Amino acid sequence: MCPRTRSRALQDLFLPIEWLDEGKVRFLDQTLLPQEETWVETADYRVVAEAIRRLQLRGAPLIGVSAAYGLALAALESAATDAEALRRDVTEAADVLRATRPTAVNLSWALDRCLRALESASDAAGARETLVRTAREIHEEDVAANQRIGAYGAELLPSGVSVMTHCNAGALATGGYGTALGVVRAAWTGGQLRHVIATETRPLLQGARLTAWELKREAIPFTLIADSAAGSALRRGLAGAVVVGADRIAANGDVANKIGTYGLAVLAKENGVPFYVAAPTSTIDLSLPSGDEIPIEERSADEVTSVRGVNIAPNDIDAANPAFDVTPNAYVSAIITENGVARPPYEESLRRACEAGVPARG
Amino acid sequence: MCPRTRSRALQDLFLPIEWLDEGKVRFLDQTLLPQEETWVETADYRVVAEAIRRLQLRGAPLIGVSAAYGLALAALESAATDAEALRRDVTEAADVLRATRPTAVNLSWALDRCLRALESASDAAGARETLVRTAREIHEEDVAANQRIGAYGAELLPSGVSVMTHCNAGALATGGYGTALGVVRAAWTGGQLRHVIATETRPLLQGARLTAWELKREAIPFTLIADSAAGSALRRGLAGAVVVGADRIAANGDVANKIGTYGLAVLAKENGVPFYVAAPTSTIDLSLPSGDEIPIEERSADEVTSVRGVNIAPNDIDAANPAFDVTPNAYVSAIITENGVARPPYEESLRRACEAGVPARG
Repeated sequence: MCPRTRSRALQDLFLPIEWLDEGKVRFLDQTLLPQEETWVETADYRVVAEAIRRLQLRGAPLIGVSAAYGLALAALESAATDAEALRRDVTEAADVLRATRPTAVNLSWALDRCLRALESASDAAGARETLVRTAREIHEEDVAANQRIGAYGAELLPSGVSVMTHCNAGALATGGYGTALGVVRAAWTGGQLRHVIATETRPLLQGARLTAWELKREAIPFTLIADSAAGSALRRGLAGAVVVGADRIAANGDVANKIGTYGLAVLAKENGVPFYVAAPTSTIDLSLPSGDEIPIEERSADEVTSVRGVNIAPNDIDAANPAFDVTPNAYVSAIITENGVARPPYEESLRRACEAGVPARG
Repeated sequence: MCPRTRSRALQDLFLPIEWLDEGKVRFLDQTLLPQEETWVETADYRVVAEAIRRLQLRGAPLIGVSAAYGLALAALESAATDAEALRRDVTEAADVLRATRPTAVNLSWALDRCLRALESASDAAGARETLVRTAREIHEEDVAANQRIGAYGAELLPSGVSVMTHCNAGALATGGYGTALGVVRAAWTGGQLRHVIATETRPLLQGARLTAWELKREAIPFTLIADSAAGSALRRGLAGAVVVGADRIAANGDVANKIGTYGLAVLAKENGVPFYVAAPTSTIDLSLPSGDEIPIEERSADEVTSVRGVNIAPNDIDAANPAFDVTPNAYVSAIITENGVARPPYEESLRRACEAGVPARG
């Protein structure tokens, strides 16, 4: 392994992706977890794009960080000798990266921020440096945002709480530390957390594979359940709060997140359990008045009819595989951002959270 | 294959279990579906008991039918030369069969009916004949009950309906024809049904493996979804009714059924979709005032941490695996029995359904 420099902010944290000083990125292939911990090193932004498409890199905030690093790689790879030509090459790469997945708004948010930063560059070398610096800033800011989300979220939880979470909104879904699992980490460190209930999250099993891997790694006590066991667990009072991440949040507080989130939110409300969404403001899309406008990615039917390569259904059948659903704001008790906890009515509280200005938005 | 006689009532139907005239039972090993269609022939009741325990034979009504056939095998196997000795051997076998699974009340119901029938037998040969005849009657009555459930259920459905179902409450879960899938079959035959949405039903995937197999076999159009996709499907109006089976129904209409049923019922109500339970009266346990008293089977954690032998989670973690949950009666629009449709208040309507007297109850 080659020497690499981490900024102070990222030291001592598990990071699912890293910028290497020699102009490469190194990331964990999440499709192979928990059985294999395989790291990929690449200088090719197309490898990053493909990794996002294939869910080797996944989770809305991590998709944003990865796309920014992808753009930096594209700039280093470009043979352009002036800023204008470099901008053209980078814009082309941005289009490739932007087309990988439709739902997480952090992807566009990060790409747009990088492209904006490029506007003031006057030569190719300066433009390259700007893109690398901006990508690293986005990464560092994301980790810092998660740590603030964790602290704000932990304040909402009672002592001795059991938290239910869905999918993986952990270090593996972000630049590091995690959003929903950031809240879990902060509550664990603060001694408030008793236990986590992790849903396995079919079809791609991010709960069973990734959340379980993260929690086991840090010895945070947890129980894995099938997705459909969540309802009776909430009814039996086994969780004092549900905390999930988000892929995109509309201006009115409607939340797009992993398929099954809507059901959990309804079941939480029905059983008087608070339902919290933990997400950086980069996930909030103030341009969309409601969740009805959020594009929902439909993924391959194979993900439903097989599990890790093993067929579980008859051949040649029809299967639907929406990757996300939309939870109407009425089921969301609060949205925990790095700029504080937004409460209903969300039109106002989310705008305030975004305007608090960290990170800067266009 | 040896010659075998089916009663008129069972002709032309797919049956997951059959009595063979040479004194054996023949059943489909459901754990191997849909990849393999393997039939087991046995004269040993212990094989039947083990098949129930291992879910080669599953579904509350089929568990009842299988247990009755198991008792008949035990009677044929017994070396007893008088009725009293035979009763002792059969009672011992009944204890083994009864201990296989705790939740489905049809198991005890069928065993008790067989043991009662045995009371009047005066010699060993007569006792053996009584047990074989009673088991075959239970089987035939179950199929007839399902056909009546299907007809009653279809009357509740509008024309052109899409029905969502969970787990497998089909021919494979019963003596034949099915309860929830009996309603689907009747609606399909009657031209009312447009489409079925089948949930995969983790952890053991009875929806993906068994319901999909049954529906494909009869060319009934359906779409398979992950369990957690049910909520958004209901919210998007993709199903006009939810129809499920039951493993035990308390006197007040609380329903124990496959884990995840409770969540579906809450989501159906939240979205104004009727939620129907289809079950023969042998599933109704009037001795239990409410669902709180229904024992819920906790199965092995391995079923959650692996899928068809493939590990999906880190090793040595904690997983919970309740096989059933209880849906409070407030979420149940109607309970469809072979004696008609029971509506709230269920204390009264379920008692009336049971007293309608087919099959006779003690």
